[in-house]
Amino acid sequence: MGHAITLSIDAMGGDNAPDSVIDGIAKRAKRDPDIRFLLHGDTAAIEKRLAKRKILEGRVDIRHADDVIEMDAKPSVAVRRGRNSSLWHALESVRDGEASAMVSAGNTGAMMAMALFCLRRANGIDRPAIAALWPTNGAHDHCIVLDMGADVRADAADLAKYAVMGSEYARIALGADKPRVAVLNVGTEENKGRPEVKEAAESLRDMAERPDCAFQFTGFIEANAIPTGQADVIVTDGFTGNVALKAAEGTARFVGDHLRGAFEHHWSSRIAALFAVASLRRLKRRIDPRRVNGGVFLGLDGLAVKSHGSADATGFSAAVELAATMSRADVIKRIAAQLDMPHRTTPESGE
Amino acid sequence: MGHAITLSIDAMGGDNAPDSVIDGIAKRAKRDPDIRFLLHGDTAAIEKRLAKRKILEGRVDIRHADDVIEMDAKPSVAVRRGRNSSLWHALESVRDGEASAMVSAGNTGAMMAMALFCLRRANGIDRPAIAALWPTNGAHDHCIVLDMGADVRADAADLAKYAVMGSEYARIALGADKPRVAVLNVGTEENKGRPEVKEAAESLRDMAERPDCAFQFTGFIEANAIPTGQADVIVTDGFTGNVALKAAEGTARFVGDHLRGAFEHHWSSRIAALFAVASLRRLKRRIDPRRVNGGVFLGLDGLAVKSHGSADATGFSAAVELAATMSRADVIKRIAAQLDMPHRTTPESGE
Repeated sequence: MGHAITLSIDAMGGDNAPDSVIDGIAKRAKRDPDIRFLLHGDTAAIEKRLAKRKILEGRVDIRHADDVIEMDAKPSVAVRRGRNSSLWHALESVRDGEASAMVSAGNTGAMMAMALFCLRRANGIDRPAIAALWPTNGAHDHCIVLDMGADVRADAADLAKYAVMGSEYARIALGADKPRVAVLNVGTEENKGRPEVKEAAESLRDMAERPDCAFQFTGFIEANAIPTGQADVIVTDGFTGNVALKAAEGTARFVGDHLRGAFEHHWSSRIAALFAVASLRRLKRRIDPRRVNGGVFLGLDGLAVKSHGSADATGFSAAVELAATMSRADVIKRIAAQLDMPHRTTPESGE
Repeated sequence: MGHAITLSIDAMGGDNAPDSVIDGIAKRAKRDPDIRFLLHGDTAAIEKRLAKRKILEGRVDIRHADDVIEMDAKPSVAVRRGRNSSLWHALESVRDGEASAMVSAGNTGAMMAMALFCLRRANGIDRPAIAALWPTNGAHDHCIVLDMGADVRADAADLAKYAVMGSEYARIALGADKPRVAVLNVGTEENKGRPEVKEAAESLRDMAERPDCAFQFTGFIEANAIPTGQADVIVTDGFTGNVALKAAEGTARFVGDHLRGAFEHHWSSRIAALFAVASLRRLKRRIDPRRVNGGVFLGLDGLAVKSHGSADATGFSAAVELAATMSRADVIKRIAAQLDMPHRTTPESGE
């Protein structure tokens, strides 16, 4: 699979923890013999579930943590009072170099607040971002959209840095050699959109013109074009990105519900459903959010991956796989190298 | 159908104008004998198509306009140089009281810029909004989301006024007696989101507490919950609203494409498709954007309805129906009455 790594796992985060967390790492461990795990959380609960997952024998260290950050805890409170939590301990293992990445299905806001405090921002980054994979019809099957909600605002300089960070992610996760970067906007004409979005586009156009730039810039993109795959990396502020992602999730669920309803409507459609089982399963598999689970925190001095809070074992194992891939590819160092390169002019740094 | 009205139609706006426009009003005219039409545009082209639509005989006045605003024209240029266009003339008929509403499938930005100039803002409104119907599983089958892109920004006072305007729309179009209003946000907790969004929520909470308030306030809503129908009116700035709508459109198309692909995959799924034709048609009909076509411009001193640019006759007739309903219900006057009521405290007006 790749070189041996250790991942730090928040065993208590998420709606189905610790069971789906442990089942998820077991699932991944079966396919990837070169991962070890540091499991942070309630020792008794973890040991109970571990006993059922023989594949993990000898590949896990349990680190007891007394507390669990609740899914609805305020981030500021979590940072102040959560130092005995499994989430904090899981981050500390990355900070201290014991693990090359951490994964949690816990509270996103608390995780970002704690990660900012524990791992700290990477050099030159003001606003870290959460990057997600979005299914497309394009050559790479997915594109990367960031920020998905780490911060409710982003200025032009932030957006330009999201492009740099997202491009490194795209090279690793999508295999896109020179990723096509676009800025999310409400139109594709140059005169449309908010000032920060137009300024970011100007800046990215300049950056992309340098011969050694690691990405292409394709201009503005509208949200309906995200699934076409015409861009590999799409940058936006975390408020807009989060709304876009959730609007897509809600629509997929709405269509799915009605599709089920349509097939239960009449005897002929019930027969159709029998014939269509395999097709519908294939469709579901293609757009199954569990198979592309994992928001990568970019712009920190350490690698943290957020699994969906309601992830089951399949979903959590996808997040673990993503953490392993990104960690083996050394994404944090690669981003740091890109951000330090002198040709990366941003509105903030000037030149 | 209702009392007799005259609608002003931009016959030249949209990708398929004037044919789909004329076919669309013919479609509506068949069902609603009490509408007359002022058709603005190229007389020859209009007459040619009209000759095929006997239902419109004696119910149409043609007003010649030399120019057409192109779909990609800059709004500022359209306002300066478009005074001989069908779009401008169609708006003028509303301003001059010849028609009670206008409909265009033309350039949205140009239409809003011209409408601001020609119809002017309603008293107390800084930022007019475009309100759209969004399909839901709720009691009313749709909810209303605004702003969909009239302005890329909205402050707390704007959002509060969107709630008032959207509620009147919801009462008319959805039959919601006391509409449930929510503010679009990236979480439902009070500590989340941008400052203007939090401030708008506080203000709406205060307004809704007054016994004579015409709406309920249900707090924040996330974009994935829009299709659940848990709110009747959802307010957001035009940048976010536009991105949400387009993310939903893109997802629906993505799922639809894969659904088609899934049914063409294998002999059993092709048989399934035969049995499922009726079901899939029902589903498509349920979420067909043509059946709920029409963005209503709210906050102007006159009624303007924007049809989708690529609308066919069915789509355009839906926009005409919406214009007729809103115009017969006197939505502009009702909104003005609501905005003038002394209890409508907004952060801007104070009290």
